[in-house]
Parts: sequence; C-alpha cells; structure tokens
Amino acid sequence: MSPSTDRHGNHDASFAAWRARLHEVIFEADTPAGRTFDLLLFAAIVLSTLAVMLETVHHIAARHGPMLRAAEWLFTVLFTIEYVLRLICVRSPRRYATSFFGVVDLVSFLPTYISLFVPGAQTLLIVRLLRLLRIFRVLKLARFLSEAAELRHAIGMAREKIIVFLFTVPTFVSVMGAAMYMIEHDHNDGFSNIPQSMYWAIVTMTTVGYGDVTPVTVAGKVMASVIILIGYAMIVVPTGFVSAEFVAAKGRRPVTTQACPSCMRHGHDADARHCKWCGAVLSLSDSSVP
Amino acid sequence: MSPSTDRHGNHDASFAAWRARLHEVIFEADTPAGRTFDLLLFAAIVLSTLAVMLETVHHIAARHGPMLRAAEWLFTVLFTIEYVLRLICVRSPRRYATSFFGVVDLVSFLPTYISLFVPGAQTLLIVRLLRLLRIFRVLKLARFLSEAAELRHAIGMAREKIIVFLFTVPTFVSVMGAAMYMIEHDHNDGFSNIPQSMYWAIVTMTTVGYGDVTPVTVAGKVMASVIILIGYAMIVVPTGFVSAEFVAAKGRRPVTTQACPSCMRHGHDADARHCKWCGAVLSLSDSSVP
Amino acid sequence: MSPSTDRHGNHDASFAAWRARLHEVIFEADTPAGRTFDLLLFAAIVLSTLAVMLETVHHIAARHGPMLRAAEWLFTVLFTIEYVLRLICVRSPRRYATSFFGVVDLVSFLPTYISLFVPGAQTLLIVRLLRLLRIFRVLKLARFLSEAAELRHAIGMAREKIIVFLFTVPTFVSVMGAAMYMIEHDHNDGFSNIPQSMYWAIVTMTTVGYGDVTPVTVAGKVMASVIILIGYAMIVVPTGFVSAEFVAAKGRRPVTTQACPSCMRHGHDADARHCKWCGAVLSLSDSSVP
Amino acid sequence: MSPSTDRHGNHDASFAAWRARLHEVIFEADTPAGRTFDLLLFAAIVLSTLAVMLETVHHIAARHGPMLRAAEWLFTVLFTIEYVLRLICVRSPRRYATSFFGVVDLVSFLPTYISLFVPGAQTLLIVRLLRLLRIFRVLKLARFLSEAAELRHAIGMAREKIIVFLFTVPTFVSVMGAAMYMIEHDHNDGFSNIPQSMYWAIVTMTTVGYGDVTPVTVAGKVMASVIILIGYAMIVVPTGFVSAEFVAAKGRRPVTTQACPSCMRHGHDADARHCKWCGAVLSLSDSSVP
Repeated sequence: MSPSTDRHGNHDASFAAWRARLHEVIFEADTPAGRTFDLLLFAAIVLSTLAVMLETVHHIAARHGPMLRAAEWLFTVLFTIEYVLRLICVRSPRRYATSFFGVVDLVSFLPTYISLFVPGAQTLLIVRLLRLLRIFRVLKLARFLSEAAELRHAIGMAREKIIVFLFTVPTFVSVMGAAMYMIEHDHNDGFSNIPQSMYWAIVTMTTVGYGDVTPVTVAGKVMASVIILIGYAMIVVPTGFVSAEFVAAKGRRPVTTQACPSCMRHGHDADARHCKWCGAVLSLSDSSVP
Repeated sequence: MSPSTDRHGNHDASFAAWRARLHEVIFEADTPAGRTFDLLLFAAIVLSTLAVMLETVHHIAARHGPMLRAAEWLFTVLFTIEYVLRLICVRSPRRYATSFFGVVDLVSFLPTYISLFVPGAQTLLIVRLLRLLRIFRVLKLARFLSEAAELRHAIGMAREKIIVFLFTVPTFVSVMGAAMYMIEHDHNDGFSNIPQSMYWAIVTMTTVGYGDVTPVTVAGKVMASVIILIGYAMIVVPTGFVSAEFVAAKGRRPVTTQACPSCMRHGHDADARHCKWCGAVLSLSDSSVP
Repeated sequence: MSPSTDRHGNHDASFAAWRARLHEVIFEADTPAGRTFDLLLFAAIVLSTLAVMLETVHHIAARHGPMLRAAEWLFTVLFTIEYVLRLICVRSPRRYATSFFGVVDLVSFLPTYISLFVPGAQTLLIVRLLRLLRIFRVLKLARFLSEAAELRHAIGMAREKIIVFLFTVPTFVSVMGAAMYMIEHDHNDGFSNIPQSMYWAIVTMTTVGYGDVTPVTVAGKVMASVIILIGYAMIVVPTGFVSAEFVAAKGRRPVTTQACPSCMRHGHDADARHCKWCGAVLSLSDSSVP
Repeated sequence: MSPSTDRHGNHDASFAAWRARLHEVIFEADTPAGRTFDLLLFAAIVLSTLAVMLETVHHIAARHGPMLRAAEWLFTVLFTIEYVLRLICVRSPRRYATSFFGVVDLVSFLPTYISLFVPGAQTLLIVRLLRLLRIFRVLKLARFLSEAAELRHAIGMAREKIIVFLFTVPTFVSVMGAAMYMIEHDHNDGFSNIPQSMYWAIVTMTTVGYGDVTPVTVAGKVMASVIILIGYAMIVVPTGFVSAEFVAAKGRRPVTTQACPSCMRHGHDADARHCKWCGAVLSLSDSSVP
C-alpha cells in the first residue's frame, strides 16, 4: 500500500467509474444522459446524411461546397471519436467491432479518410448513408422496442410462406416475360430480349407500371392485360398471409388452462380470481400464462 | 322592478332564448333545424370551393369571371355572418375562436378581404379549400359519428406501428436512392443527384411509377427490379397491421357496462353471473348488451 | 259446355301450360331447359357485345362491316323476341318492364331500331354493352348465387365505413391538388388549374401514376413524395375494414345455444347429436341455427 | 435352377435393386442422395434457363454464342438422360409420361432436337422456360411441402369467390372502356376503338397506369378519375376475401385425425371424449394433435 500504488488504485477506480458512466451514456437509453446522447447521435446522423446527399446536387455543391465538406469532416471526426469511445467502454471490444453495428460504425467514417489518398473515392462516401440504420437502434432503445419486436415476430412467422411466394414470382416473371418477348420483339425495341421483357413483367405485375416499356401490338396488349389481371390477383395472396399472421398474433388472449375447482368449467381470464359462473375462488398457482 | 328594468329583463330573457335557439340550429344536428342548417352549410362549402377551383381554369375565368367573383363575395359575406353568429351563441367565444374549427372558419373568409389591400393575394384564396374539412364536422354531427369514431380508434390503435413503419421507409428510400444514384448518374439525367433518386425510389416503392424517371442501364434495371419487389413485399406489412387491428376491434367479446356492486370493477363478460375478482353476485338486470 | 267453349277452354288450358313452361325455361335455372336457355343467352350477349366492340375497330369494320351489321340485326331481333316472350310469361308484365333488368332488356335492342331513323345514332349502340350485366343474373340463377350474395352482404356491412372513406378522399384530393397547383402552376402546364391538379392527385394517391402530369420543381417533387406516402398509408384503411368484415362473416360458425341435458355444457356443433363431453343424447328441437 | 437362370435371377434382382435405388434418388427428397439430386437438378434448370435468356440478348449472343449453344446442348443431353431414367424407374412409365411434369420434362429438351431440322425453330426454345416450374416440385419435395399445400388450400377455398370477382372485372372493364371510347375517341388516338379502351381500363383499374394511353379531354379526365376511384375501391374486395380465408385457415380448431370406433366418422374435436354423432367413447391414445 505505497502511495503510488494507492494513487494508481485510485486512478484505476476512477477510470473504471468513468468507463461505466460512459457505457451508460453511450449504450443505455433508460437514463436521461443516455437518452440525450441517442437524440444527439440521431440528429448528427440525419444532418451528416443530408450533407452527403446535398453534395450530389450540382448547384448546391457549387455554392456551398466548402461548408458541406467542412460538415463532412466535422461529422467524420465526431463519429471517429464516438467509435473509439465505444471500443474503450464495452467489455469485449472485439465482439463489438465484429458486430453488425460495429462494422456500420466503422464504415460510416472510413471513406472520408480514404478519399484523402484516393481522389476519386468520393462516391464511396455514399456508404455513409448506412448510418441511417442507426435509427433502428435508437428506436429500439427508446419506446419503440416492443413495436419493432412485434413487427419482426410477425414477419418471422410468415417467413416460409414469403419464401414460397418469392420463388413463384421469378418463375411467373420469366415465363410471362418470355411470352411477351415472342409476341413483341419484332415490333418493339422495349422487348428486344428476354431479360428486358422480364424487367417489364416485374414493373407490370407489381402494378408499378412506368410506361417506359409498353406493348404496341394487339396480341401484346391482350397478353399484357392477362398478365396484369394475374398480377392483380397475386397481390392478395401475400397480403392475406401477413394479415392472417397479424390477426393470429393479436388473437392470443391470455386465458388460463385451469378449471374451476367447484364447477370445473374452463376459459377463465388470466386476471380472474373467482369463477365467473359459480363464484368459487380460483387457485392462483396456475394463474400466470406465458 | 321599474318598467325599464322589467323591459330590460324581458329583453335579456328573449335574447337568451334566441341565443339558445341559435346554438341549437348551428351546433346541434339532432333537430330538424340543425340538420337543415348543416346541409345548407355543406352545400355552401362545396359550391364556394367549386367557385375557387373554377377561377383557376383560364377559359372559364375569362368568360364567367365576374359571376365567380360575385359568388366568392357572397359566400365570404355568408361565412362572415355565420362566424359572428357562432361567436355570439357559444358559451366561451375565446375557446371556439382558438379551436381547430374556429381557426378554419376564420381562415375560410379572411383571404377575400385581404385581397382588397394586397392585389396579388388571390393565390391565398386557395386556403378556402380548408372549408372542405367542415365535411368531417357535418358528417360527425350527422349519422356517421360512430363510423368516424371507429375509424379514428382503429388508426389510433395502430399508430405506434405506423410510426415504426414510417421511419423505415425513408431509410430504405435513402439507401436505395443512393444505390441507384451510384449506378445511373453517369448515364441518366433522372438520377443526377441523391434527392432526385430518392424521389424516384418513393415513386417506385409505392407502386405509383410515373415513368418520368426510369433506369436506362442494365445494372440499373436489375437494381430497380429488386427495389420494386422489396417495395411490393413491404406494402403487405402495414396492410396486415391495420387489418389485424380492425379484426381485433370487431372481435372484442361483448362486455357489460355494469360495475360489480361489491368491488366496483368493470369489464365483466356478458355471460358472467359472479364478479370474477371478488365473487360477488352481479345484478342481472343489465346483463344484456346490444 | 258447348264444343266451342270446350275448345276455347282447352285452348286456354294449353296456353296457360305453354306460358308456365315458357316461364320455367326463361326465368328458372334449376331445370335442364332453363340452364340451357341461360347458357345460350349468355353466349348471345357475349357474341353481340363482341360484334359491337369490333365494329369500332376501323380495319375490322372496313373488311367485315356487313357481317358485323348482320350479326347486330340478328341479335337485335332475337333479343326483341325474348323481350316479348318475357312480357307474355311473367305474372305482372308492368312490374317486369319497370324493373332494372326489364329496362336493361329493352335498352339492349332499342338503339338498333333508332339508328334506322337517326343515322348518327350508331354511337348509342354502345348502350348494348349493358347486356353484359345479364351475366350477373345468369350467375345468380346458376351456382354462384350464394357467393354473390355473400359478397353483397360483406360489402353491405362495410357500406357506411366505405361512405366515410369516400368522403375523405375528395377532401384530401382537393387540398393536395390545390397545394400542388400553388407550387407548380407557374412552371408546369400539367398543373395549370386546380381541377387538373386534382386529376393528378387522384391518379397519384391511388398509385395509378400515369406520368402524363408530373412535378418538375424541387418543391413539387418533395410535396408529391409526401402526398404519395400519405396515399400509400391510406390504402390500408379500407383494406383493413373490408378484411375485418369478411373475417367476421366467416367466423360465425354454427354452434347451437342448447346445453347438454346431462352435464349442462354449452358449445355443441350444429350437427352434433351426442354431447361431446359426456355422451348424452342431445335434444334435437333446437339443433337448427339461422 | 441352371446357372444361366440363376445368373439371370441375380441380374434381375440387382437390376430391381438398382431401379429402386434410382427411384429413391430421383423421386424422393427425404434421403441425402435424393436431396442432392434435387439441388443439382434445380441448379441445372436455373443455369439452362439463364443460357436461353442470354441468347436473346444480341451483344451477348454475338460474343458468347458458341458457349451458350454448347451449354444448351449439354443441358439438353442431361435432361434427355434424366427423362429416360425416370421412365425406367417409375412403376408406370405411361402414367408418368402423361402426367403434367412428364410432359413438361419432355417439352423441356425436345425443341433443341427439332431446331436441327427446322432452322427457324429457335424461338421454340423459349418453351424450355417451363422447366422453371420444376422449382415447385423441388420445393414441394423439400421442406416447403406443407407451406405450398396450405397456400393451394387457401386459394382453393376462395376459388368460387375469385371466379365471381373475375367475372365482374371484364364487365366493368367493358362498360367503362366503352364509356371512355364515347368521350375520347374523337380527340385521342389512344381510345380509337373499344378494345383499345378496354386495354386502358384494365391498365388503369389495376393501378398499373403505364401512361401510354391517357385521357386528354376534361370529360375524359373526370370519367377516368371516377373509374380510378372505383378500381381503388374494388381492390379491397378480393384482398378481404383471401385474408379472411387465411385467417379462417389459421383459426381452425385442432381436430383429431382418428375415426370413431363405432360409426367411423371423422372430424372430432381434440377435447372430445365421446363421438358427437353416435355417443361412443373415443379411444384417447391418439387425442393429441401436433
């Protein structure tokens, strides 16, 4: 217990406290400091993304170029500091660095440094847009966690059906694109090959309908009408699937499995203490339902 | 009790009766007079809105300009009188004047007067279109009240989910707009900057598909096809959400409005004879629910 | 009982039998003759409609004009005879003639006769397309009756909600059309007046998106993006409404209200003859459910 | 029992074993060999389809034509061998050859041989795309069987309603196409005849909206707006139908697969102890349902 050890110990203790405090601010969203940090981070992400976007608009870049580039460097430095602080305060820096958000955090400021050595690397700055995915983390940490989780759950439940559906779409798109190619390719540059016809089929069956490629022959218009009606009929299938999943998810109302000890009837609500038919006291051992 | 006081008293009493009658006509929709007033107001709103709209059509304005302007002034005066009467007959004029419909009522005739002093203020007349929102009030006061309330309730229930969804759309739109910008901006004026590409992404993912901006390169068409299919898959998520909310709203078991006479708690099933919390016998006089 | 009376009586009797037989063939769909008549009528309607359609195609009219006109007269005469027979065999000719299908039947052949006196009346022949509505009658009389009834029922249940929704759409369309008019009308002929802007708003909010009118200014594109996202969000509301109605309609599974006479438990299927819990015979007096 | 007979018997036995093994590999998907075969077949179908597609792209065909044609012949030979092996190992070759997939298998390689004798038959090669329908078989044999079956079941349940709906669409399309023809055909080449107007009506009512045909007159735009809103309202009907079917399919109470030991009827509830038709005691060994 020499003074130096003591000082060192104090130093260590204060560093550990600072690290814990930092972790709380950066990673938690339940404390006022954590919530403020998340909101500031959110604003910084939106602002830096706006700067990247506006730099691609020629007349804005011509007038406000230096300011936008200054903002770019400011946010790059801020995000770099944030990244280092995150590495310092997490228990396992390696696990964070290899996690999805760890990679996104790194990739969100690296291109600016790379652009110093590779002049043409400015287009890579677009990767910074991935920072926007931070929004999900902020939302999850804040009050939207349960909503997002419910959304993910419902999508997960219908996943296999969605896969089946996503396999049938390319098949239909290929067959119908090929049919339109056979009918139209001699009269219409828009259907000059099958991949191009498939592009048309996707644009059509999803009811987007740009109109950059449209049938010109009578047979082509008849065929297109049939394809459109099939696409129209197909949109209801995944809609019905997902609706049914959501309905099923909502319909699971908590009901205990226990019978009334007196009249033996089932179907009591999870919060019931007395049988609603005979008034007998329900045993409470089984009243909680997962 | 001098004659003058008495006359004044009579005057006051008749004024109060007239005010109550006016309030009934203007604000209630259950009496014949109130219903007639609402229908006339509804017609006046539609006609005055039509006049404002037709004034922007050049060849109609050239021929029927004076008539349209006369109609404009007629409706302006009528709505001004109506506004003053409303102020007179409500209990708290200040609360009405600062309510949503109070502001809309004022804004629906002010621009006409302003246009007398500011000649170029004619474009502000467009604000008169907000009178159309009166339709909701008329509908609510009439027989559609419960329908509109149910609609609002169902939307309110799904509000948080809609917010989650509305946050993911801009993120996807930004990321995909940026991807298309990188692929197409050298070959296609329609993708000359990221905001423009985001406009394309919104038009595409919602299946509107104007066709004013479309990909021209092969890579762009492949990317667009993928984005379209993702957008197509995403439309089912909010549809399923809201459907499930409506199904849940309809499926809600009939619950009696009566409170337990012993523990005063609400929410008993229509078939319950005993309170499910305290076991007291429920009175059966009110057990039937429409 | 003179011979003449007898002959007259026989004549009357045979006429009545012939009329009853005719009524069965024309108005019933349960007998083989009635079904055959309906199928032939259906084919005649489709063929005559095709003839009317093809006459509007110039190069077909140039080559096959006389044949198409002959077909037109053939079907006109057939439908005229059918109309007269219908008038003869129904109990109340006046009620038939003033019913919806009575008027449609008359209107489906009249324009051909009118075109003899009014040369330019050929465009009126288009009214013959209303014959296609016969398809519904044929379907209803055949095996689709219950399906069509269920469809009508479900739509009827949601009718009031649909009305509320249909009132909000024009309001939004007007307000948003006006907003786009204010932003774009100086730079874009497509938004030269408010009704034209409303046409754009309808085409946009329903995700049709022709692209004949599109925003050109930056503010217009931002506004259009917002309107598109609102329209995208609004489509889920009526979808959810109608889905919930259909789900509710399907969910009404026939369950008897009677209790088991032995164990007193409820919830027996309509086709159950024995209690599924204790095996006692259920009384059958109340086994039918509306 | 001469050596030759014995050898012949051995030969027969080994051939039967080899045939059984072949059948397992080609037709079963539960064994590792069968699964590997299906995956390889799947890859071959996708690759050969890609080759057919790329051959229609001019600049690719110009550079890689010989390679693509070699791939075409390679896959043709492979599919021919596979077809012969299938014929050998199935119990009834005739039944396989006349089944849907038997015909598709044959048609997927025949056009290549035909193109040797008929030089211009290359366009027939497009039929090879039908091989993609193999995907369904592969998916069904693998883990997606139950999903695909559920999808088919739900569509089948709503089939009659879909038919009713599909009959109303052409009627509406015809009537509205004719109405637009009457309004626009003097001013707009896009509505020069009724079939063309019907093409417009289909493209519009399904919200595809190419924009190759759009109304130009004021009356035409008003009519188009009304048609668009009707189409918008109609899309919710089939969506609601199918959603309700899926919800009903999910909600179906667990029903045991066991038959009543006395009256042999199926469809008992999972909690039933007595047959609900004859009252006999149900054996409880099979009362649990996965």
